[in-house]
Amino acid sequence: MSTIAERSSQPSLASTERATDYDEAFPSSRKVYVEGARGVRVPVREISLSGGEPPLRVYDTSGPRDLDVRRGLPALRAAWIDARGSVERVERSYRPIAGVQTVELPPGLVRQSLRGTGCVTQMRYARRGEITPEMEFVALREGLPAELVRGEVARGRAIIPANINHPELEPMIIGRAFKVKINANIGNSAVTSSIDEEVEKLRWATLWGADTVMDLSTGKHIHETREWIVRNSAVPIGTVPIYQALEKVGGAPEELTWELYRDTLIEQAEQGVDYFTVHAGVLLRYIPLTANRMTGIVSRGGSILAKWCLAHHKENFLYTRFREICEIMAAYDVSFSLGDGLRPGSIHDANDAAQFAELETQGELNRIAWEFDVQTMNEGPGHVPMHLIKENMDKQLEWCAEAPFYTLGPLTTDIAPGYDHITSAIGAAQIGWYGTAMLCYVTPKEHLGLPNRDDVKAGVIAYRIAAHAADLAKGHPRAREWDDALSKARFEFRWRDQFNLSLDPVTALAYHDETLPADGAKVAHFCSMCGPKFCSMKITQDVRDYAAAMSGKATEFREQGGEIYVPV
Amino acid sequence: MSTIAERSSQPSLASTERATDYDEAFPSSRKVYVEGARGVRVPVREISLSGGEPPLRVYDTSGPRDLDVRRGLPALRAAWIDARGSVERVERSYRPIAGVQTVELPPGLVRQSLRGTGCVTQMRYARRGEITPEMEFVALREGLPAELVRGEVARGRAIIPANINHPELEPMIIGRAFKVKINANIGNSAVTSSIDEEVEKLRWATLWGADTVMDLSTGKHIHETREWIVRNSAVPIGTVPIYQALEKVGGAPEELTWELYRDTLIEQAEQGVDYFTVHAGVLLRYIPLTANRMTGIVSRGGSILAKWCLAHHKENFLYTRFREICEIMAAYDVSFSLGDGLRPGSIHDANDAAQFAELETQGELNRIAWEFDVQTMNEGPGHVPMHLIKENMDKQLEWCAEAPFYTLGPLTTDIAPGYDHITSAIGAAQIGWYGTAMLCYVTPKEHLGLPNRDDVKAGVIAYRIAAHAADLAKGHPRAREWDDALSKARFEFRWRDQFNLSLDPVTALAYHDETLPADGAKVAHFCSMCGPKFCSMKITQDVRDYAAAMSGKATEFREQGGEIYVPV
Repeated sequence: MSTIAERSSQPSLASTERATDYDEAFPSSRKVYVEGARGVRVPVREISLSGGEPPLRVYDTSGPRDLDVRRGLPALRAAWIDARGSVERVERSYRPIAGVQTVELPPGLVRQSLRGTGCVTQMRYARRGEITPEMEFVALREGLPAELVRGEVARGRAIIPANINHPELEPMIIGRAFKVKINANIGNSAVTSSIDEEVEKLRWATLWGADTVMDLSTGKHIHETREWIVRNSAVPIGTVPIYQALEKVGGAPEELTWELYRDTLIEQAEQGVDYFTVHAGVLLRYIPLTANRMTGIVSRGGSILAKWCLAHHKENFLYTRFREICEIMAAYDVSFSLGDGLRPGSIHDANDAAQFAELETQGELNRIAWEFDVQTMNEGPGHVPMHLIKENMDKQLEWCAEAPFYTLGPLTTDIAPGYDHITSAIGAAQIGWYGTAMLCYVTPKEHLGLPNRDDVKAGVIAYRIAAHAADLAKGHPRAREWDDALSKARFEFRWRDQFNLSLDPVTALAYHDETLPADGAKVAHFCSMCGPKFCSMKITQDVRDYAAAMSGKATEFREQGGEIYVPV
Repeated sequence: MSTIAERSSQPSLASTERATDYDEAFPSSRKVYVEGARGVRVPVREISLSGGEPPLRVYDTSGPRDLDVRRGLPALRAAWIDARGSVERVERSYRPIAGVQTVELPPGLVRQSLRGTGCVTQMRYARRGEITPEMEFVALREGLPAELVRGEVARGRAIIPANINHPELEPMIIGRAFKVKINANIGNSAVTSSIDEEVEKLRWATLWGADTVMDLSTGKHIHETREWIVRNSAVPIGTVPIYQALEKVGGAPEELTWELYRDTLIEQAEQGVDYFTVHAGVLLRYIPLTANRMTGIVSRGGSILAKWCLAHHKENFLYTRFREICEIMAAYDVSFSLGDGLRPGSIHDANDAAQFAELETQGELNRIAWEFDVQTMNEGPGHVPMHLIKENMDKQLEWCAEAPFYTLGPLTTDIAPGYDHITSAIGAAQIGWYGTAMLCYVTPKEHLGLPNRDDVKAGVIAYRIAAHAADLAKGHPRAREWDDALSKARFEFRWRDQFNLSLDPVTALAYHDETLPADGAKVAHFCSMCGPKFCSMKITQDVRDYAAAMSGKATEFREQGGEIYVPV
């Protein structure tokens, strides 16, 4: 047995370096806190600008960064959760699988757990008319009224994934009245990756803007990896509990049982996982609908459940036990992310009968979850050509009663493995505009391998672009100010401001410097595209002066025309 | 005075290496020629597949690659042009600017020019009911009837940019009934880049799939650079002649004259440029409409003309002399690309009065061009948020009488300099789906610097994705077969086929090998994402067998159920 502290002595995990990764990534930014009602303090990234421009404040998902990962983040929500009551302290129920080597947690990460003595969900409070500190936090973060937040959560049109065992969380909201969110997947597999790499991926993904992170580990030390992740995450963590359940039965789907799955849900709920992907919509009768597909069932969860159903020739136990699952979710405030186990895995299979059959069942399950005041969202595709994307959104809104939609891309073509962050950002931007609340990122390694650090960043940035493009198109009240600030900097040749306002300032600066490295070029009124004598931006400024003169005082202009003119 | 041959001894230009760049980029592909009517031979890239699958043939823009760039490409079209007659041989009219150092052409690139004794445009022949070899070539290339090609060209809904002085061209068509095309910009500027770099960029861009290339050079040796480019290009070359005209007057827009511009048009037409961007829609009265913009006039051509108009307080001479320009275009079959000099340069300025005023004038100019049987398309934006994109397409179709639309992106947000190939691929895919015929690429260096080799490739691939996604969404009859071939390979674990079917096989292979480098993994029925015990694709194959059994012979299945089952 070895502790993670012994195994991982990489400098990347040292707290001394941690203080600087934010500053390195965003050289002209600092994290400031906006104070709101009831003592909430919302982090924002404040970008300093030159030329007398006010600083721009943007949404910040990066969480506290200068802390020791062996101790975890501060328990921001602990007092709020305590104050609401209706919780009891419980011992952790997790027991390692006999015979499997485990890794011990550092003492600083060991926690007791809470369990609700009744329903403790944000939806329950919202429906009672209570605005929780989590809702206050979210409202301030989005720049929207707290009452709107409460109303959307109460109606099931938005969720605040916030397990009572995840007090480290900086609350966020997923719903189409709000900023479009993005999720980054991390997770080890049997082949590669270790705990500290996964924690580092979490920190890296949230640095660049991941709003939630799903831990999709399938290999060794699933449980321990997750503990490290949750304790160090300021964003909601999602999982697919069936993966861990499957590990417990040695990878044989037909040996899964309800009891074993239920125990797994509780173990993960006790750790603080904020949302669970549950493939309860994969019904026995839908499975033959996939038989003539080009790519069958591509969801791991979907294929596990399909195999279980066929092996036993019984209905999916996640469906038959769904009300029992709801009771567990309610006691910890874990949100559902109802899985789309039959999502299309290719353009060929998009929008077929299997996919839509499951979507309709997701709607039925939403309504059951809401009976228990459990928060829920619906997972969506996948691989869909552009002309078939809107149908997904329309059907989801109708059949699923406007619960938040959470899609994987969709990829708009299959022909570019190695570039699926782009094939899918095209679809993601579109479906985000149509109303999808959260976009699950796709990295350049999709279909090919596990993403490394660069891939995670490439995926997050592509999806930040897609989500922001969607916010603009939806007319989110605060989306445009960022574009306007950058365009103004561009037009006024404030080069450093232009870099600093980019989603990735360091890359923007480096690209500029490849052609014009001199420091003088940062204040020059030209760039390498046209050279100093031929800058359209500069010409435009002259034109603007003339145009103003022309419209304002046409006569004077004609008299002076020949003289105020300065050739470029 | 130095010759280019002396200056450039990089091995990248040697003909020995040239034979292999295609094979390196596409290891399992070969170029084959499809024979059609009237002796046309259309190049296609044939991708060999394993597992008994037939090879897949895809559109190929790469041109002959094993030739000496100091001699240029073979004159494929020479006999067709000669056979049509109505042309006379003329001396080149270009004379270097006095006092400016020039570079001598290698003897192998020196050509005499042709001029039509009347109108020699593809549109003229199409309207007469003639199917030219160029139309036959295009029809075979697109897999569509030659009569459709002729009809679309005759109606002005498509153009075949094909200067009679560019016999090296492999003809292609731009129109919304056909595959969506992409353009790559290259060009030196006063600050950086040399002739051989530009030729190499041309070859590189077409290797990856650029359908046309615009030479936007603004620095030294504009004329000589262009000669090298046209002689070595199998794709249409576009230019913005006002750039060279401006160089002749030392960079002072107000000194431009019609005569000087006219001479420049003729000089470039004699070289073989296939389409000219002409900013004839920037009218004097539209200029004040840009005064309150966030980013004014961002088109270089637009700002030059605006400055000229204001300096002289006269109407744009490109507009007043438009019929004379048409006569020149008709004599060489140069197509118009009517510039959008007032396109928006920021999300803030999208779809404003200045932009749409010019678009309406583009429509007026199209109709004049058609009086002369001159082919024409319209350039479009620029920076447009998603919800405003469709209005651009709708207005262009209506006001411009369905002439092909050719847009720059559009970029759907301004906040990601360094990633504008992605911000714009999102908009490009969408507007391509709505009907835009050609998409001008944007590289990661947009707004920051001149693209290098990697940037050109990144831009071309992002736009190949956007164009193909648009083709799928439009239902182009041959688009889906590529996606289906790749998805089938993926589902059947034909890893090498999956890589080879990618737009960029070598990158796909490299990404796979980062996690699983062993050669055995290329035939393994699993990958690094899930590991060998947990592959959803593998499970799905089992499920498919069961499902088939279940639907086909339900009774037998129930009897055998427990026995044919093999646990994973």
